[in-house]
Amino acid sequence: MSDMIKGTMISYRPDIKVLDATIRDGGLVNNFEFTDDFVRKLYLTNVRAGVDVMEIGYLADPELFEESKFGKWKFCHEDAIQKVLIDILDPKMQLAVMADVGRANVARDLPDKKDSILDMVRIATYINTIPAAIDMIETCTKKGYHTTVNIMAVSKAQESELEEALEMLGKSSVEVIYLVDSYGSLYPLQMRQLAQRYLEAGEKYGKKIGIHAHNNQQLAFANTTECAMMGVSYLDATMAAMGRGAGNCAMELLMGFLKNPKYDIKPVLRFLQDEMQKLKNDGVVWGYDIQYLLTGYLNQHPRTAIAFTNEKRQDYFTFFQELQENEV
Amino acid sequence: MSDMIKGTMISYRPDIKVLDATIRDGGLVNNFEFTDDFVRKLYLTNVRAGVDVMEIGYLADPELFEESKFGKWKFCHEDAIQKVLIDILDPKMQLAVMADVGRANVARDLPDKKDSILDMVRIATYINTIPAAIDMIETCTKKGYHTTVNIMAVSKAQESELEEALEMLGKSSVEVIYLVDSYGSLYPLQMRQLAQRYLEAGEKYGKKIGIHAHNNQQLAFANTTECAMMGVSYLDATMAAMGRGAGNCAMELLMGFLKNPKYDIKPVLRFLQDEMQKLKNDGVVWGYDIQYLLTGYLNQHPRTAIAFTNEKRQDYFTFFQELQENEV
Repeated sequence: MSDMIKGTMISYRPDIKVLDATIRDGGLVNNFEFTDDFVRKLYLTNVRAGVDVMEIGYLADPELFEESKFGKWKFCHEDAIQKVLIDILDPKMQLAVMADVGRANVARDLPDKKDSILDMVRIATYINTIPAAIDMIETCTKKGYHTTVNIMAVSKAQESELEEALEMLGKSSVEVIYLVDSYGSLYPLQMRQLAQRYLEAGEKYGKKIGIHAHNNQQLAFANTTECAMMGVSYLDATMAAMGRGAGNCAMELLMGFLKNPKYDIKPVLRFLQDEMQKLKNDGVVWGYDIQYLLTGYLNQHPRTAIAFTNEKRQDYFTFFQELQENEV
Repeated sequence: MSDMIKGTMISYRPDIKVLDATIRDGGLVNNFEFTDDFVRKLYLTNVRAGVDVMEIGYLADPELFEESKFGKWKFCHEDAIQKVLIDILDPKMQLAVMADVGRANVARDLPDKKDSILDMVRIATYINTIPAAIDMIETCTKKGYHTTVNIMAVSKAQESELEEALEMLGKSSVEVIYLVDSYGSLYPLQMRQLAQRYLEAGEKYGKKIGIHAHNNQQLAFANTTECAMMGVSYLDATMAAMGRGAGNCAMELLMGFLKNPKYDIKPVLRFLQDEMQKLKNDGVVWGYDIQYLLTGYLNQHPRTAIAFTNEKRQDYFTFFQELQENEV
């Protein structure tokens, strides 16, 4: 067992980077309607907690999404984000946005790095749109940004497709390749096996590997820590696990796990009690529940479970039968 | 990695036994006040779901606990449990009770097997009371019962103590030795390492190994499945993860994981929607929350977190400081 483990529980792993995705993945729950005050407090919390990268939203294409229908964190216009964050920027932490293949125009909408407070662009792609993702990566690299790529829904990909994708991305300028369990369907053993492949590709091409997990089967934290012990270095988490459907790996769990003294759970706890409880009290709903378990178990997109949640249904048995019919 | 894994995701492991501990561990949440109707429905659900053993409570000593202050499932008098279950007994499933060292008098209170509907007695012990546990095991064996032993709070035990305990139990008549993460503080890597030791002792002495996990850090399911893949065969779970504090490994998650066709998640889903929701609606509170994360992280008994929950506190930051003071 020991040869597969690069770090143990008490080890200090200076290569680990924690990325807070609360505003971006959490924005999928509340339509990106976070107040400026919330985002500023989260920024300051992350700096105090030792978080390495904070993802503040999407770079969505305003020609595809009507701006009045979403909070500003879906678009992350440079002037809008500067207005909120410019006076508290701390060079210890990087700022990131996500750009979806087919839903963002980085060539047109992303300013050059010298004109931006952003440091990193994370390209999200399905496995069949890798060439388009690589175009976006190269554009962002040329503009001066760090880049990562998230290969979504890997639990649905064929093995040969994944090999090809990793080869293509290996040859690109991307710095970090993310293993993403979009449907929360992967067990720790499967995650370790996948991480091994990503790490081999990463070693071959000099790329770091990241992990973005979902909590459909209460495995987001376990899968994240198992990947970390394999050598995966970029770890995504969100406050109170806020994120689409069942949510993500909880920052508070991850902070407890990491033994690097730069990480501190205490500011996170304060943010949970002061800010995240308020969101929950205001009726924003996310997190593990039976309906998400079922879509995760069946390796399906959580959209049906989100609808089930919104309709306040609790007839799990009938829902499971509906999901099985979707399979046919 | 492959040599450490006795089963894979799609494997059929006929040696696996699922034990439902809802009434016993869940009874710690609601003072064992389950209605007869609930227990009967749970029994029938477990039979349909393929559960191998159902634990229906404790064999608590009536001289130590006032019977009027608890539901009958804390005592499991033979006549009382027969009245509820005798007409629906199904030989496919075994019935178990738990007997705590120092809190049960099995010599006096447990009838001979021929006069009981119980099949199995599970002896719960701390590592420093193993000799007393072995006395109880031998008494139960002589009366004709299957026996298991749960070594509680193993995360607090010294390695040498554990080795000695496993040797002593190996030489006893007990059939199953349980790895128990009472505080929900162990990460999957640690669980695998512990399981390896238990399995080695089990191999040496012809004992099966079991796992009973708690969900303080959302690791109960992950730890249970990781142990199963190592070769651990008795897997404890509860409906909706009901159990003390953060609860246990959820039966509905485990049923999704196990690939033996004898197991069926559908009756479990029906029980969740019909019965477990009702308990929750009636105000019975259990399950993962930040306060349990913190006691798990600090490897402490969850009693402080249970008090925090009962007081409806949400000041996690202050609570964490209190817990750290407990450490000193």
